[in-house]
Amino acid sequence: MPVINVKMTKEDGGATIEQKEELSKGITELFSKIFNRSASNAVVLIEEFNTDNYYIGGKSITKIREEQKLK
Amino acid sequence: MPVINVKMTKEDGGATIEQKEELSKGITELFSKIFNRSASNAVVLIEEFNTDNYYIGGKSITKIREEQKLK
Amino acid sequence: MPVINVKMTKEDGGATIEQKEELSKGITELFSKIFNRSASNAVVLIEEFNTDNYYIGGKSITKIREEQKLK
Amino acid sequence: MPVINVKMTKEDGGATIEQKEELSKGITELFSKIFNRSASNAVVLIEEFNTDNYYIGGKSITKIREEQKLK
Amino acid sequence: MPVINVKMTKEDGGATIEQKEELSKGITELFSKIFNRSASNAVVLIEEFNTDNYYIGGKSITKIREEQKLK
Amino acid sequence: MPVINVKMTKEDGGATIEQKEELSKGITELFSKIFNRSASNAVVLIEEFNTDNYYIGGKSITKIREEQKLK
Repeated sequence: MPVINVKMTKEDGGATIEQKEELSKGITELFSKIFNRSASNAVVLIEEFNTDNYYIGGKSITKIREEQKLK
Repeated sequence: MPVINVKMTKEDGGATIEQKEELSKGITELFSKIFNRSASNAVVLIEEFNTDNYYIGGKSITKIREEQKLK
Repeated sequence: MPVINVKMTKEDGGATIEQKEELSKGITELFSKIFNRSASNAVVLIEEFNTDNYYIGGKSITKIREEQKLK
Repeated sequence: MPVINVKMTKEDGGATIEQKEELSKGITELFSKIFNRSASNAVVLIEEFNTDNYYIGGKSITKIREEQKLK
Repeated sequence: MPVINVKMTKEDGGATIEQKEELSKGITELFSKIFNRSASNAVVLIEEFNTDNYYIGGKSITKIREEQKLK
Repeated sequence: MPVINVKMTKEDGGATIEQKEELSKGITELFSKIFNRSASNAVVLIEEFNTDNYYIGGKSITKIREEQKLK
């Protein structure tokens, strides 16, 4: 307990193993501290999305990044 | 708001960027129209599955497509 | 095919059955039109969240709505 | 970005609003710090499960808690 | 390992605890047997949906059940 | 009905098509038997995770497997 699913984009070569470990460990410890429960069974799942498959407000992250670069 | 997750199979080379954009934009606008809410924060996530990983009634899409071709 | 999961907040008494039907039917037809595939097996699942369980940028929808009312 | 889904059990009256806010804010900040990206669009969704609907190793949390109390 | 999410409708009073236990235990054992891996960390999550929130081919389970009764 | 999502790690070359078929068919039949409902519309989705993207208790399956080999 619990199961935590992280859905993020794969950008700039993608998250490194170190970043993914830091995130998973951090979320697990945070949960454990706030709810005062053992987190030995906590599951963290990281799913990395192509920027063409992730949309905010109907616009792909690919397009959003392009627009941000033009600014 | 909202978060919409689309799980579909990757067939015939997979969905094109244009198709994915049309789907994401269409769903976002539909939601916004029906609920009369801003959809600037709407997230659409598209996950494409190998046809060996998607089953209906215990049969893979791979097999279902093979059977459809025989008909 | 496909499976589409809609996660939205329950506000103002929640979505009506008519709104949920319109959304599900609309998404199903949109998918069918764009990918030119039968959608007779398309599954749409609607999950409604308490506004205390949905966060954007670390802030709950409950708080976001309160701030919007003050403006 | 990103979308983070937390599936946890509802125990001892359930998580308080303060606990849920602390968790969501903490995860959002952690993500932002590790990946050095803005998290203004980060979505955190918290789903609370009845202990009869959450199983580890084929055993419900309801039963696991009962066994822990006997120890 | 693994995490298995079951999304089903709540009908006829809903699934009993016995049914949910049988399903979770059965899936866990099946996984363990097929992949020859320990399933002590397997998580099964059961989510029950109102029949107005579950659609197949754009039609709610509520309507599908009504039509089945008429036949 | 229902939709069942299996999230597992990709190890030792990954699950074979035969294993995935056996799992999907087995889960579908189990569901059908327990709830005495037709499962012709049951959807099983299998998602395979890199062992660096799956964490238990804050530790990646990659690390857990390394430690198991040392024992």
